[in-house]
Amino acid sequence: VIGLNSGASRPTSGGWNDEFATIARIKRRFERDRPGGTSGPIPPVGEVWIGDDAAVVASRPGQRLLLATDLVVAGVHVDLEVSSVEDLGFKAVMVTCSDLAAMGARPDHLLVSIAAPPGTDLDLLVEGCAAAADDVGCTVVGGDLSGSSNLVVSTAVAGSLRGVVEAGPMLRSGARPGDSLLVTGVLGASAAGLRLLRGQVDGQPVAAGSRDAEALFRAHRRPVARLAEGEVARVSGASAAIDISDGLVADVRHLAEASMVGIELDALPVALGATEQEALGGGEEYELIVATEDPRRLTVAFDRAGLRPPIVIGRCIANPGRLVLEGKPLPEGGWRHDLT
Amino acid sequence: VIGLNSGASRPTSGGWNDEFATIARIKRRFERDRPGGTSGPIPPVGEVWIGDDAAVVASRPGQRLLLATDLVVAGVHVDLEVSSVEDLGFKAVMVTCSDLAAMGARPDHLLVSIAAPPGTDLDLLVEGCAAAADDVGCTVVGGDLSGSSNLVVSTAVAGSLRGVVEAGPMLRSGARPGDSLLVTGVLGASAAGLRLLRGQVDGQPVAAGSRDAEALFRAHRRPVARLAEGEVARVSGASAAIDISDGLVADVRHLAEASMVGIELDALPVALGATEQEALGGGEEYELIVATEDPRRLTVAFDRAGLRPPIVIGRCIANPGRLVLEGKPLPEGGWRHDLT
Repeated sequence: VIGLNSGASRPTSGGWNDEFATIARIKRRFERDRPGGTSGPIPPVGEVWIGDDAAVVASRPGQRLLLATDLVVAGVHVDLEVSSVEDLGFKAVMVTCSDLAAMGARPDHLLVSIAAPPGTDLDLLVEGCAAAADDVGCTVVGGDLSGSSNLVVSTAVAGSLRGVVEAGPMLRSGARPGDSLLVTGVLGASAAGLRLLRGQVDGQPVAAGSRDAEALFRAHRRPVARLAEGEVARVSGASAAIDISDGLVADVRHLAEASMVGIELDALPVALGATEQEALGGGEEYELIVATEDPRRLTVAFDRAGLRPPIVIGRCIANPGRLVLEGKPLPEGGWRHDLT
Repeated sequence: VIGLNSGASRPTSGGWNDEFATIARIKRRFERDRPGGTSGPIPPVGEVWIGDDAAVVASRPGQRLLLATDLVVAGVHVDLEVSSVEDLGFKAVMVTCSDLAAMGARPDHLLVSIAAPPGTDLDLLVEGCAAAADDVGCTVVGGDLSGSSNLVVSTAVAGSLRGVVEAGPMLRSGARPGDSLLVTGVLGASAAGLRLLRGQVDGQPVAAGSRDAEALFRAHRRPVARLAEGEVARVSGASAAIDISDGLVADVRHLAEASMVGIELDALPVALGATEQEALGGGEEYELIVATEDPRRLTVAFDRAGLRPPIVIGRCIANPGRLVLEGKPLPEGGWRHDLT
């Protein structure tokens, strides 16, 4: 199931049959075009509600508040056979912060709600949340705690635009024909890490216990929100961005649809030890896809900020129907979780 | 289990053994006094983090942002045998807004995250959320959606102080010896409604199907956050407030502990059809407990605003160890949910 704002949630086996239709319906119910012809609220100019990585709202004139939330469900997003509850807590905070990274914003305040079965090691879970909050430089200011038959952690974040505030948030809908498309890192590491952790070493030959395998395990268990990358991209003229929570193919599609452009990909940067399929379809790694008309400016800005160089993977074109990789149509859908 | 910020979550059978100790530990981990002697962030002056109904943070100088979150778990907070998923959605939004009511704030923007088993009627659930959002005059701007083996709805709200902004948020810790204690309505209706809905008509004789019974059903299924009451109390000099999510006894205790005062109760306003025990221990009804040194001013302000008159139930005293009702010690704990 795909989130209203993207992030940890994504297609699950045994989930909803038609998640995108469901979200469109939910969006209608909360905003305009309600059933029965009544009209709901409409986002004021400059605000973004349901449908992007995070919501952009203005509490006061001239001020922008960014809000995002994500669920991490044990057995759906995290397999507790190969990740600890500490990893789960870390990931729950990180994926929500990744939504802000995709807007070019920074997290300021976090809420953490935990529904957990008796016997859950809450201290470890909280340790993971706190470690992630420390890493992104923000604070957990509240939350909730409840019993539940399965473990669900919901995080919400309030964030802001720093640096050049005049450069508004990067929306999914801002890409234009002619823009270059870049990613902030190589892809497929999280999915490859999960595969290796499960002992299914049927991809490329990476020996378990090697330094490469450790990097893949880490990519899966402890994903990192690309907050610095998002901020630098925003203040360096990027036109659009999205985080890769659902997999490159799915998220390229989301960006193309929101921006009403086509996309031609001619490079697929595959992480060491990952398969091409994992780079295309594996999600939950939280690299950013960024569109910009000036990729050189972006690259120089990343270099000056001490960030890894962004990788050009393709371009936006005027034909919205055209989504291709090396001339061939992009496959449908994203990574399907199949934990249960 | 009690929330970090209070609300829908509260002691459950089969839950944590020592929920208050757990929350204190979590608070320490996220704030100062970390294990190993390291020091975490400390709330700046004027900010309130974990431990009150909502968090108060300042994104910018002079600006206050209120944040709260709550979980509603099917089988823990809502019994789907007697409430619909629409009721559950309504309640999930309302309980979080009630946290803001207890601060004297208003909700501006909501996030709704739903973890639901296949087959859940999402449209009905969303309808309930949207109806509550309409009732409180705010907007759902984002959320998340995931599969799960049981239904968990997590809501987060960002709110603000309106009207007399100089009158800061009502904290749990603001009550002083000599303050009068008032509630915004009669108590026990939600618990009585649940009892009647389950056919356990062993309390006062209220015929099912009568207008009185309908009012109790409604109190249980569709609780109302006392936002106008909270706001009027705040701008009329109230010193402290808390919402009754865990039951009068438990929440009086929370307020007394946070304010380091004792409390003498001499009146127990019992809802028609509810038992004294339900008025004392039944929670999830979301009336507010308000402390003020000038109860007459509060009553006049409520009257001018067209609100039901607040009911004086007792007073705060200097002896923090003394918590009594009609001269007898208050019983321990709050309502224990026993849905499963």
